[in-house]
Amino acid sequence: MPLKIYNSLTRQKEIFEPINAPYVGMYVCGPTVSGESHLGHARPFITFDVVFRYLLHKGYKVRYVRNITDAGHFEEEGKVAEDKIATKAILEKLEPMELVQKYTQLYHWAMDQFNNLPPSIEPTATGHIVEQIEMIKKIIADGYGYEANGSVYFDVVKYNDVYSKKNQPYGILSGRNLEEQLDTTRELENQEEKKNKVDFALWKKAPAEHIMRWQSPWGEGFPGWHIECSAMATKYLGKKFDIHGGGMDLQFPHHECEIAQSTVCNHELPARYWMHNNMITINGRKMGKSYNNVIKLSELFTGNHPELTQAYAPMTVRFFILQSQYRGTLDFSNEALQASEKALKRLMEGYEWLKAQSFVGEAKAKDEALDLQLNKWIGELTEFMDDDINTAKVVANIFEIIPVINSLKDKHITQDAVATSTWNHVQSQLVVFIESILGLKVEAGANLEQLKGVIDLLIEIRKESKANKDFATSDKIRNQLMNMGIQLKDEKDGSMSYTFS
Amino acid sequence: MPLKIYNSLTRQKEIFEPINAPYVGMYVCGPTVSGESHLGHARPFITFDVVFRYLLHKGYKVRYVRNITDAGHFEEEGKVAEDKIATKAILEKLEPMELVQKYTQLYHWAMDQFNNLPPSIEPTATGHIVEQIEMIKKIIADGYGYEANGSVYFDVVKYNDVYSKKNQPYGILSGRNLEEQLDTTRELENQEEKKNKVDFALWKKAPAEHIMRWQSPWGEGFPGWHIECSAMATKYLGKKFDIHGGGMDLQFPHHECEIAQSTVCNHELPARYWMHNNMITINGRKMGKSYNNVIKLSELFTGNHPELTQAYAPMTVRFFILQSQYRGTLDFSNEALQASEKALKRLMEGYEWLKAQSFVGEAKAKDEALDLQLNKWIGELTEFMDDDINTAKVVANIFEIIPVINSLKDKHITQDAVATSTWNHVQSQLVVFIESILGLKVEAGANLEQLKGVIDLLIEIRKESKANKDFATSDKIRNQLMNMGIQLKDEKDGSMSYTFS
Repeated sequence: MPLKIYNSLTRQKEIFEPINAPYVGMYVCGPTVSGESHLGHARPFITFDVVFRYLLHKGYKVRYVRNITDAGHFEEEGKVAEDKIATKAILEKLEPMELVQKYTQLYHWAMDQFNNLPPSIEPTATGHIVEQIEMIKKIIADGYGYEANGSVYFDVVKYNDVYSKKNQPYGILSGRNLEEQLDTTRELENQEEKKNKVDFALWKKAPAEHIMRWQSPWGEGFPGWHIECSAMATKYLGKKFDIHGGGMDLQFPHHECEIAQSTVCNHELPARYWMHNNMITINGRKMGKSYNNVIKLSELFTGNHPELTQAYAPMTVRFFILQSQYRGTLDFSNEALQASEKALKRLMEGYEWLKAQSFVGEAKAKDEALDLQLNKWIGELTEFMDDDINTAKVVANIFEIIPVINSLKDKHITQDAVATSTWNHVQSQLVVFIESILGLKVEAGANLEQLKGVIDLLIEIRKESKANKDFATSDKIRNQLMNMGIQLKDEKDGSMSYTFS
Repeated sequence: MPLKIYNSLTRQKEIFEPINAPYVGMYVCGPTVSGESHLGHARPFITFDVVFRYLLHKGYKVRYVRNITDAGHFEEEGKVAEDKIATKAILEKLEPMELVQKYTQLYHWAMDQFNNLPPSIEPTATGHIVEQIEMIKKIIADGYGYEANGSVYFDVVKYNDVYSKKNQPYGILSGRNLEEQLDTTRELENQEEKKNKVDFALWKKAPAEHIMRWQSPWGEGFPGWHIECSAMATKYLGKKFDIHGGGMDLQFPHHECEIAQSTVCNHELPARYWMHNNMITINGRKMGKSYNNVIKLSELFTGNHPELTQAYAPMTVRFFILQSQYRGTLDFSNEALQASEKALKRLMEGYEWLKAQSFVGEAKAKDEALDLQLNKWIGELTEFMDDDINTAKVVANIFEIIPVINSLKDKHITQDAVATSTWNHVQSQLVVFIESILGLKVEAGANLEQLKGVIDLLIEIRKESKANKDFATSDKIRNQLMNMGIQLKDEKDGSMSYTFS
């Protein structure tokens, strides 16, 4: 069975056929590092991590590009912070790149916590100013961009007129037509400079107080938000690549603008398949500053937010997200997360136990129905992934298998109920699906305090056993601790200390 | 006492006076991420981490900029890898930014292992192409740069002629005069394009097979190595900043070129203080590919290199480096590292024990000489750091103090030998110097396997105690493990299992 993915562009599931197999190019819109990532960002990054992992599993050579937006968007914060900066020395001024450094680090930390694989390339907007300027020059030369007062805008109406005739109107991805857009466009800034209300900025003139600024053919300024993704995707993946991903909120206007920009420059639609994950709501509500329900990832992991009744481990959050198919809505609540926490614990306990078993010999199944059923559940895992990355169904099937594992563990069934080859197949496939594809791992349960506590207890018991002349026990404790690299030392006052060697 | 640092520029120790206190701007040359960092890189990054930490300790507001070189230097690898790329699709080609991503991650991981604080800003060469081009344009406009066949060179002879009269010859930092340089300059590439053999490239024309290339006023090419540091230091720290650091091997030509470029553009010497750490040799030999003794950091941490008889923990390497003053030579050998490992263990054991003590009351010293001595040793820690960051002497003094701590621990002296206030002073100052300034920390000794092993042993003892009807012990084990968040479960077959809650 081939992999099928839902293509937002055609609004249907399609067989995935890479342009130049076995190579696959995938571009996913990354974070804006003017602040910390929140729960809403967790979903696209985990979703496309699983897409990346599954493509690798299928043997594709994937170049996965996920950008970091570190320019342009900083303007608002800048406006507040840059008050009267003209009189300040450079070291006294707020430097946006200090914020970039701080929030990029926090973001990488969170990605690591989620066990997301690093992308192949992680380009930054500020690292591609030249490429963005070159692209804007091309758009102007082709007649779809115009300069006004040091800024450059994309002529959406002209683009739509020309490309509607080629069956590629502006709005092809989101399905919105231009009239609708005119009604809903809220951006009123610099209206007087624009030919049409729907036009968007390719380059913005930097006001005097704006620190982030670069020299350009149109004077000092900074790139518009949309052009960076077009420039970086083209640079690293070519004029036409396989997959473009992101959250559903980016379909319009961001991805629509990307399509228009790249089409003008490269004369074709930039990506063949467009994938969009659905949003996360919080207790049924949209996430938003006005609702005071934007939960930062560090808050999620520590439980330090009014919406949270406890801390949630990164693996719990990952599992919670993968329990739904990525195009479905997902509602966050403490109850739902607690249920995921319990379920994941049950899953990993059964899985870890199974992984530690060795099944040898060539026994045939005594319970043929169970044997068939296990093989069916395992076989379906690939089918479900091939059906638009349906991790929800993959997880559901694993939860059919876990009770069978527990039955074996608890000796309610014997090993020969099922063929040895089936046990081995279940074992190896669960390693692939749970660890390599879903990216789940056992949380490290051990910490130094726990270890010290357990050792202290052993030392106490050893002391008592010596007092009771039970030297067998006291020697055993000493020897086995030493075997584990823990050295005991009898102190002069009769107490014992230990060191890790 | 004020902080004094050795200024390579004036070849003497000078009192450190920031241009605009309490702000301090520090620029340190970072890694080239075309490969993995090696032992030689550990020294500058640990040295300047301690400088950064000490300046923060002294209350300065430090902006610490450490760049990542991800352009230009890739040309050699590129030349091999780019063979016949013209016929390949973009995804099949080697993409230098994939290497950049991989090696940047490895580098960050190593810095983290060393407990180096992240710098305030970590700018990349590819992220500052516009700024570099602008700087080159300025240099050309001022008559010190010239274009030849799509490349741009810096006219060293003209610069030297003009600036020698201003007492700032080319060679001011390294002390080499132009004649010496003419004799020792090895670069023969593109000699025919240069006016003088000593001229260096500001911008290089990209040959057809070169992937890393940007549009510029001189055609497609890439920046020379030296210009990136001038451009980034100026952008984030201003025309004149406080400290420029790096390894001694960078004095010439890299820092000399930086001085020339920045002076032409900004009309003053870029940094007030130039600090250079000395090199690391391996068993008395220079590190080099031809000696096969370049030890990568991951090899150092795993022991996987012919020069290594064992693995060395990152903290051992950090401590080894800090046992010398940064301007002294440092010879790596297994014996030296093993000695550092032992010494660090002794230091941290004494320190950790002292840290856990509470000294209360207002006792006066019974042993006044010892009391005075302890105060003297502690007082000198600041003096030594103020004397050009002499970590060697700081470590030596701490090793005078450790035996006194051990005497107290082993009850060879009593607490009232020394005034309570002195013990508290020693304790608090050691926290500052060992943890905050030297950046040393206890290696996490615990791992899940050790914890599991210890618990298994406890479970075994519990089983025996139950068999012996020693229920006091068996209940104690159960209860105390539960208090530590470790749940025991009696299995049907008489065994016990446990889970971390």
